Amino acid sequence: MYYILQVDFPYTGPWGTAMHQAMEELARSISLEPGFIWKYWTENQETHEAGGIYLFRDEKSAATYLEKHASRLKSFGIPHVNGKIFSVNEALSRLNHAPF
Amino acid sequence: MYYILQVDFPYTGPWGTAMHQAMEELARSISLEPGFIWKYWTENQETHEAGGIYLFRDEKSAATYLEKHASRLKSFGIPHVNGKIFSVNEALSRLNHAPF
Repeated sequence: MYYILQVDFPYTGPWGTAMHQAMEELARSISLEPGFIWKYWTENQETHEAGGIYLFRDEKSAATYLEKHASRLKSFGIPHVNGKIFSVNEALSRLNHAPF
Repeated sequence: MYYILQVDFPYTGPWGTAMHQAMEELARSISLEPGFIWKYWTENQETHEAGGIYLFRDEKSAATYLEKHASRLKSFGIPHVNGKIFSVNEALSRLNHAPF
């Protein structure tokens, strides 16, 4: 089974290359989280939002990580985080070329 | 550039294999949408929600698809859809093993 964690929150930058430089160390630590497979880092300069789409191996790991990440974002000055966990319908996703 | 479209909405089933069977034809049509790369089909029986995470080649294709998909969901009896489009921070995502 695979689980998607989708996270988004209000964000005022840095964006793009500067975001990469500011968050590189954090990204490396995220790769070491239990159950973690991958993360797409997302950003929208027009709506002033950022976030991430994650694939996890199990639901518990995704929930534990979401709690940790929301606390971290709070410490960065981001009080509210939208976070949702879903199981993946693998057969339909494979039909639509989703990589596993 | 790559763009993530995240979509979720209230949903009461079918789930799992029955969802696969009910949505297979729709999934095949989604693969033909302009700019489409892949979709993960998401479902959560506890929160009664479903949706999808999409990767698109350009922002305009993602926005056009979101409008079409929201109209289709309305015709299925789903009045409100949460849909957000983000650009992908590719350098950070590659650090976190995201497939491109």
